Amino acid sequence: MRPGASFGTADLLHGLRTSPGIRCSLQFEVFLVKESKMALMLLSRQLTCSLQQNSRLFACGHRLISQTAAKIDVDFDYDGPLMKTEVPGPRSRELMKQLNGIQNAEAVHFFCNYQESRGNYLVDVDGNRMLDLYSQISSIPIGYSHPSLMKLLQQPQNLSTFVNRPALGILPPENFAEKLKESLLSVAPKGLQQVMTMSCGSCSNENAFKAIFMWYRNKERGNNNVTKEELETCMINQYPGCPDYSILSFMGGFHGRTMGCLATTHSKAIHKLDIPSFDWPIAPFPRLKYPLEEFVKENQQEEARCLEEVEDLIVKYRKKKRIVAGIIIEPIQSEGGDNHASDKFFRKLRDITRKHGCAFLVDEVQTGGGCTGKFWAHEHWGLDDPADVVTFSKKMMTGGFFHKEEFRPNGPYRIFNTWLGDPSKNLMLAEVINVIKREDLLNNATHAGKALLAGLLDLQARYPHLISRVRGRGTFCSFDTPDDTTRNKLIAIARNKGVVLGGCGDRSIRFRPTLIFKDHHAHLFLNIFSDILADFK
Amino acid sequence: MRPGASFGTADLLHGLRTSPGIRCSLQFEVFLVKESKMALMLLSRQLTCSLQQNSRLFACGHRLISQTAAKIDVDFDYDGPLMKTEVPGPRSRELMKQLNGIQNAEAVHFFCNYQESRGNYLVDVDGNRMLDLYSQISSIPIGYSHPSLMKLLQQPQNLSTFVNRPALGILPPENFAEKLKESLLSVAPKGLQQVMTMSCGSCSNENAFKAIFMWYRNKERGNNNVTKEELETCMINQYPGCPDYSILSFMGGFHGRTMGCLATTHSKAIHKLDIPSFDWPIAPFPRLKYPLEEFVKENQQEEARCLEEVEDLIVKYRKKKRIVAGIIIEPIQSEGGDNHASDKFFRKLRDITRKHGCAFLVDEVQTGGGCTGKFWAHEHWGLDDPADVVTFSKKMMTGGFFHKEEFRPNGPYRIFNTWLGDPSKNLMLAEVINVIKREDLLNNATHAGKALLAGLLDLQARYPHLISRVRGRGTFCSFDTPDDTTRNKLIAIARNKGVVLGGCGDRSIRFRPTLIFKDHHAHLFLNIFSDILADFK
Repeated sequence: MRPGASFGTADLLHGLRTSPGIRCSLQFEVFLVKESKMALMLLSRQLTCSLQQNSRLFACGHRLISQTAAKIDVDFDYDGPLMKTEVPGPRSRELMKQLNGIQNAEAVHFFCNYQESRGNYLVDVDGNRMLDLYSQISSIPIGYSHPSLMKLLQQPQNLSTFVNRPALGILPPENFAEKLKESLLSVAPKGLQQVMTMSCGSCSNENAFKAIFMWYRNKERGNNNVTKEELETCMINQYPGCPDYSILSFMGGFHGRTMGCLATTHSKAIHKLDIPSFDWPIAPFPRLKYPLEEFVKENQQEEARCLEEVEDLIVKYRKKKRIVAGIIIEPIQSEGGDNHASDKFFRKLRDITRKHGCAFLVDEVQTGGGCTGKFWAHEHWGLDDPADVVTFSKKMMTGGFFHKEEFRPNGPYRIFNTWLGDPSKNLMLAEVINVIKREDLLNNATHAGKALLAGLLDLQARYPHLISRVRGRGTFCSFDTPDDTTRNKLIAIARNKGVVLGGCGDRSIRFRPTLIFKDHHAHLFLNIFSDILADFK
Repeated sequence: MRPGASFGTADLLHGLRTSPGIRCSLQFEVFLVKESKMALMLLSRQLTCSLQQNSRLFACGHRLISQTAAKIDVDFDYDGPLMKTEVPGPRSRELMKQLNGIQNAEAVHFFCNYQESRGNYLVDVDGNRMLDLYSQISSIPIGYSHPSLMKLLQQPQNLSTFVNRPALGILPPENFAEKLKESLLSVAPKGLQQVMTMSCGSCSNENAFKAIFMWYRNKERGNNNVTKEELETCMINQYPGCPDYSILSFMGGFHGRTMGCLATTHSKAIHKLDIPSFDWPIAPFPRLKYPLEEFVKENQQEEARCLEEVEDLIVKYRKKKRIVAGIIIEPIQSEGGDNHASDKFFRKLRDITRKHGCAFLVDEVQTGGGCTGKFWAHEHWGLDDPADVVTFSKKMMTGGFFHKEEFRPNGPYRIFNTWLGDPSKNLMLAEVINVIKREDLLNNATHAGKALLAGLLDLQARYPHLISRVRGRGTFCSFDTPDDTTRNKLIAIARNKGVVLGGCGDRSIRFRPTLIFKDHHAHLFLNIFSDILADFK
């Protein structure tokens, strides 16, 4: 059922009854039968709210029209937002106070009812149902409570995978390689057939750095064996056992918050303040002017300037004995404000790494998993020579990194930790990738992304004082607002209208919907946001 | 049923039928009914092997006698090891080759059948069943396929927790604080009522370091606000935004493998070689002589020497502007060789940290969770003033750290990442802690540990050329062998006799059984190991 269509209690009950694998719905139905009068009264109130909400959305004049849904649809999804209180509501506020007694809870937006959350909709503890365009900081691949994943959990033969977490590096389960092939290797970037799993994005980048340092040192060593001096000095953190290598990163980049990664993260001061760091080189990331077609020459110059600086830094740091062993970059700088560069920029950067013998590490923690319309955002670049290392996490459910054969550690226990990821995440990822392939979700991301981007450009044309620099690839879209106060206000209003948005950089709003975000969700959002902009003071 | 008791097919079938929550057994039973002849033939062969194994164990003269089992027993446990092939067997070797095509698989011991693994027994893909005294590098709290955890997974209301992984720092589930209270806070070290969850041990230590650096900087700052210069310089990894603070660690310590942790890890060269590091102070850890009662004075002097060195390093590093903000230590250095120090040593170290204004960070990643007979190993010390920060992971199923109120970050997003742990792990931990309390597993660890230690001391008396420095607390026991070749050979032989052991340091064997390891498991192991030592050439 699409937003704006008429519907009644019978439809709703039918919808609940036919939702596959959702126990909570069935429980709700039983509850309805048992306590029918009270429940129907409550239900009717909800429906009224929802209809009011929807009718208000579709009432005013100049607006985008919701299109017909695609054939392949998300039958476990809700029909639209349903708001009962402001957000955070009273129950969320109560829980925040409780949690704040245990840990700093100032970052909490609201508390969620994940059992009731489905598809593109996040339900909070006050019963508000919101279209979620942020999807847990871009980490939910195929929506909440996807029936395929719910089924996976219900299969008795899978229980053991969740209960018995192994030390994967020494005692892997029988199907470990098979699951890696079914999941990660089936979507591996071209040329990268080696893969390690890790527990999170930071660990993925940290271990990718380590693989790069080992690779570089082996190159330097030639065929010589490790010296006694190296073995002894590494134990006390000193040269030559611990060489003074560095990783070159870009201003505005975000690569994680553990101390190695953090030395390459430069998006916000709050991430870095008070934490000791390494003297590693930091290059400028291009600051493109929009619309791109109007600033072709300026943007080319800007990219050339940044690339030149990269080469200068490599030379400068080699001179001061802090050799650049690798360069890390995001295909789109996400936390730093959704900063894009041209495909050509990245191809040239790849050339520079080859020229200077540095590894090229592409951080796809946020961009990977299909949201740009390709499984990996860097596949848009058309590289001749693949990246050396590609890290992932978030929507991939497990962290880890792909790498070329030559980056394989030359002995056991060099890239190692107790868990090395979690087979239960590999199991779920294999199913997620099945769903992505079966439902053609990469093409969906391209298609829905076009609808979203076109709508944003339209809004930008109508509200240029509020929206600028509209940009995106697939559903990985964003725009700038005049300042962070306006940005935060827009996010707060949208939330109270039933849309969860995320900010990034100092004034941007980023879109990070799940892969089952469809055209009609884009239109639903655009209609709501159009009203917000029209009323904005 | 105890090892050595007589038993038949009917008993085994009954045992399988009554195992609660183990689907694989039921499947096996169906298989038996369907293919009864073939199955009974196979079964009978297995039983014969098992009986041979057991009768051999209990045949020879001078040996420890298996005791009667305690009342509280592990009814889902197997009766003893059952070996069919050498380990790794043919199927494991085939899978190793397969995995080695994807990643360096040289560290793999063998491949496991986790569905068939239960209690203290790990079953491999060749059908070998081994008593597991290593428990996935000390990370399985209450044995394999524990019925309580299997049930938890089968409850429909829990499915969502496994399928919908939230960004805990911004959108926690309704029961987040409640689960933390039920689990982690119900066993919090005295005086530490604040807790953060993380995904693994390394992330726990990394974030504990960060909390310590922030705390120290705030102390230095007094009531002054953060300066513009700090905000700007931290973005480019420079002072004063990134101060030159350090964490003092001990030679032989292991605190993880990401770059911050790795700067405090000094157990083996292979962990550190080729990775850039920080110039942070490293103090000697006491090298105690055994038996302790014979070397009281020498050991006191050794501990005094180490403590003196700690103070000297604090002063020296302050002078060279690398202020020691905190000291990290394991209650028992695990990876480094199971090195113990006296409770008094740790109390004095705590005094030193207070005197010099450094934070005292106790790394309980391997020692925590009950195996020493107290929930946290440092609770044995009898500290007047609690530790400032205590990190955990492994048997706690989630990583994280407890800390005093004053180490709470003074703003949102300072200690933060996308996942901040995983509520599905908190859910399982809450159940694990229920089981620990219900089944009095801390007392069990003390009791079973005594049986194990007494047996090891007996073996040391009989085989002093093979076993020395027997030591332990609870089941967290270990001994030294003459050299790493002997150690590795003993581990390999034990494995082929049905016992999984782990090494640590350069020549030690460590015991890391689960918390449901009972006296009779200790005796079973001691019997097998006694034979191995008698035959050892």
